[in-house]
Amino acid sequence: MEQITSVQNSKIKQANKLKKKRERDKTGLALIEGHHLIEEAIQSNIVVEQLFCIDPNRIDEETLGYAHFAYQITTKVAEVLSETVTPQGIFAVIKQPDFEVVQPKQVLLIDQIQDPGNLGTLIRTADAAGLDLIVLEKGTADPYQDKVLRSSQGSVFHQPIVYRDLKTFISEFDGCVYGTSIEGATSFKEIQPSDSFALLLGNEGAGVRSEILSSTDQNLTIPIYGQAESLNVAIAGSILIYHLKG
Amino acid sequence: MEQITSVQNSKIKQANKLKKKRERDKTGLALIEGHHLIEEAIQSNIVVEQLFCIDPNRIDEETLGYAHFAYQITTKVAEVLSETVTPQGIFAVIKQPDFEVVQPKQVLLIDQIQDPGNLGTLIRTADAAGLDLIVLEKGTADPYQDKVLRSSQGSVFHQPIVYRDLKTFISEFDGCVYGTSIEGATSFKEIQPSDSFALLLGNEGAGVRSEILSSTDQNLTIPIYGQAESLNVAIAGSILIYHLKG
Repeated sequence: MEQITSVQNSKIKQANKLKKKRERDKTGLALIEGHHLIEEAIQSNIVVEQLFCIDPNRIDEETLGYAHFAYQITTKVAEVLSETVTPQGIFAVIKQPDFEVVQPKQVLLIDQIQDPGNLGTLIRTADAAGLDLIVLEKGTADPYQDKVLRSSQGSVFHQPIVYRDLKTFISEFDGCVYGTSIEGATSFKEIQPSDSFALLLGNEGAGVRSEILSSTDQNLTIPIYGQAESLNVAIAGSILIYHLKG
Repeated sequence: MEQITSVQNSKIKQANKLKKKRERDKTGLALIEGHHLIEEAIQSNIVVEQLFCIDPNRIDEETLGYAHFAYQITTKVAEVLSETVTPQGIFAVIKQPDFEVVQPKQVLLIDQIQDPGNLGTLIRTADAAGLDLIVLEKGTADPYQDKVLRSSQGSVFHQPIVYRDLKTFISEFDGCVYGTSIEGATSFKEIQPSDSFALLLGNEGAGVRSEILSSTDQNLTIPIYGQAESLNVAIAGSILIYHLKG
């Protein structure tokens, strides 16, 4: 196995660039880290272009064979690639999968959620609930950012996610579209579960932009009984997803 | 207003020690940071023993007057006290409130949740849902840790939280106690909401310890329809809280 000992190695520099969204968008690639995420990627049949590891003896043959190219790296190189405090010493450059979903019936629409933990957790919940599709508006956190990948627990690799203009998507969607807002909204428990729905969640601070909110069929709210001002958006979204799911 | 310019000042050193749980436990105090949290503490009638701020002109009179003692600090001192990347330059040493709740009817039981974000988010949801009490087993993350406070959005200041032995609490609780597990569990949608319930959540990796799980009346699960292996514990807990709440 080829060894890479210099942090100046062009493959390492190229992999490191993938920490930037612009580079991920340009190349359609992403850098992932850690045994669990790499296993999840392989299980989801994601293309692994390069695998970098400190100790190949600790990686099973199947994983090594699955990657198009595998390289042994030093601890110093691992530290440069890593975004964690305690690197596991294994990294992969993967190809972001393309999803095409014809006539999705159960959809999560996301209007500019910023916090990577919130986005990742919502992707994980949408996956658990078996939703067909997640649609992101431009300006939402990037699913291939390290923290989103981590909190999604690998769901990013198989849960269909696309970027679309939400207003256009909503106008074409065949089913009930539920927004979320505090004013002029119906308590979610009054809504019956359904086979076909789209749920629209908005930015942590600003909520769903009014121009998009006005194009929904109905807006839902979760009642607050105590003193908290609101719920976290990933929590609220997950409560609503599992309610609508029935 | 007295000025503190040295990071070696005894009040600053004492405040800084409160970042350690041992010191918080010993003194019953906590260090909090940022305008929003301090406002929340004051609104919840928390005792503010000391207030430290870079620019007193930016703090309203009421806040300054509410604190027993207020000190002006330098940017350097603020950097030492801060646990954030971009400090707002305002800190307070507060007294942890004592809660006594007689015959709580709706209770969240937490068995050793480790992640501060998960614990904080659950405290926020419990507050929003108007639960009477949260009971923590020893070994759970500390509610007065910075990240828990932040993700609770200040709910820690007024949501009653106590430490108790969970087995004892469960044996004395007058109402249905629901555990959470994957095996031998009932799908949560089959359960009717109720005025009196306790919901038991466990550690992120290990779940609820079996010795405690065996003392519940019934164990609940949230069905997984997709490929995700599980839900995040704060998400699962919140879905169940709002379901049981009715």
